Amino acid sequence: MTKLVFIRHGQSEWNLKNLFTGWVDVDLSEKGVEEAKEAGRKLKESGIQFDQAYTSVLTRAIKTLHYALEGCGQLWIPETKTWRLNERHYGALQGKNKAKAAEKYGDEQVHIWRRSYDVLPPLLSADDEGSAAKDRRYADLDPRAIPGGENLKVTLERVIPFWEDEIAPKLLDGKNVIIAAHGNSLRALTKYIEGISDADIMNVEMTTGQPVVYDLDEKLNIVNKTKL
Amino acid sequence: MTKLVFIRHGQSEWNLKNLFTGWVDVDLSEKGVEEAKEAGRKLKESGIQFDQAYTSVLTRAIKTLHYALEGCGQLWIPETKTWRLNERHYGALQGKNKAKAAEKYGDEQVHIWRRSYDVLPPLLSADDEGSAAKDRRYADLDPRAIPGGENLKVTLERVIPFWEDEIAPKLLDGKNVIIAAHGNSLRALTKYIEGISDADIMNVEMTTGQPVVYDLDEKLNIVNKTKL
Repeated sequence: MTKLVFIRHGQSEWNLKNLFTGWVDVDLSEKGVEEAKEAGRKLKESGIQFDQAYTSVLTRAIKTLHYALEGCGQLWIPETKTWRLNERHYGALQGKNKAKAAEKYGDEQVHIWRRSYDVLPPLLSADDEGSAAKDRRYADLDPRAIPGGENLKVTLERVIPFWEDEIAPKLLDGKNVIIAAHGNSLRALTKYIEGISDADIMNVEMTTGQPVVYDLDEKLNIVNKTKL
Repeated sequence: MTKLVFIRHGQSEWNLKNLFTGWVDVDLSEKGVEEAKEAGRKLKESGIQFDQAYTSVLTRAIKTLHYALEGCGQLWIPETKTWRLNERHYGALQGKNKAKAAEKYGDEQVHIWRRSYDVLPPLLSADDEGSAAKDRRYADLDPRAIPGGENLKVTLERVIPFWEDEIAPKLLDGKNVIIAAHGNSLRALTKYIEGISDADIMNVEMTTGQPVVYDLDEKLNIVNKTKL
């Protein structure tokens, strides 16, 4: 039996300002830092001993992981960062105010972009300001793999290879794993391991800073799920 | 030409209390946190773009690395933690007050333990309270490799294999590397790459929180050394 823990990063500065964030590397707000530290206290109480940590290449998730691990005295465990656990890329909506986008495109359209499983947002091209293609952290990535915008379906398709190649083998080897990531990369993993339908997954909310603990059997079936 | 940066962790709570620390996992003091953040500001000014970070499995070095990387906007780079970059293990002196040890064993003896290259401190056995053999972070290590106490010579002998296998190949590949570690693991690396004698190395001081920047040529010869 192994433990798998998900933590969605604490509140970010742009959550607070009601902006679409995606791959923009926004910091945690003060409240977000507190949420991450509180996650650390809860993990300490839980007594879970981790063997491996995973996070994205975005500061808000990395810092959440660090605060959480420090809080439970396990900052020393191995940590792997990957773009595959990044938030859903929000395309040309990144940096836009959600209310203003609703005024411009209509409530219905914005609702579709936010809540449909397979509708893409307006895309950024590699030449656009703010394209991830200009960011050094993706310099080792095939430019064809750098998204101009994603829906949850596309997000899931780039998260799951990392699950299959890196995370699942660790769990199958009996290691306890913690993943600090984002609302949509964690939704993708949740959909995959819980077998949630395309229609239902968009209504699954990931609470910021709240550790979700799965007990998994030797076939990675879920035996128990607890929110700390 | 590649960049190699060393940072000794900021002041720890036990530096402040004048205790022998070694492998005991003591946190940074408030001053130590400030030193680490200042290192981040200096690295930002330097404009160095890192490809890989290395640190020990001790919280004070890991946190120093995180503050420094966050300060220069590079918390997202890959990070590898290893016991091989740990501080020199101070054996049975760990947790002892330096002044009281001098009273008990004599100034001369304590000076020899602190400043000789190849004299071992009194050793801890694997059964002793405080032995690293009881610490989960060393559970994957051959028990024969877990030290009961080290001098700088022994420290160097376990640091250099990691340099040879992990760090040097990255530098030879043109990657810029940052290493956040400890007074003696960094002394070992400094001795090795600068070719300092056994007698002279003990007088080389590593300032807490001050980044030391080496420019290395394609054979890893030192072209330039700067303290930020």
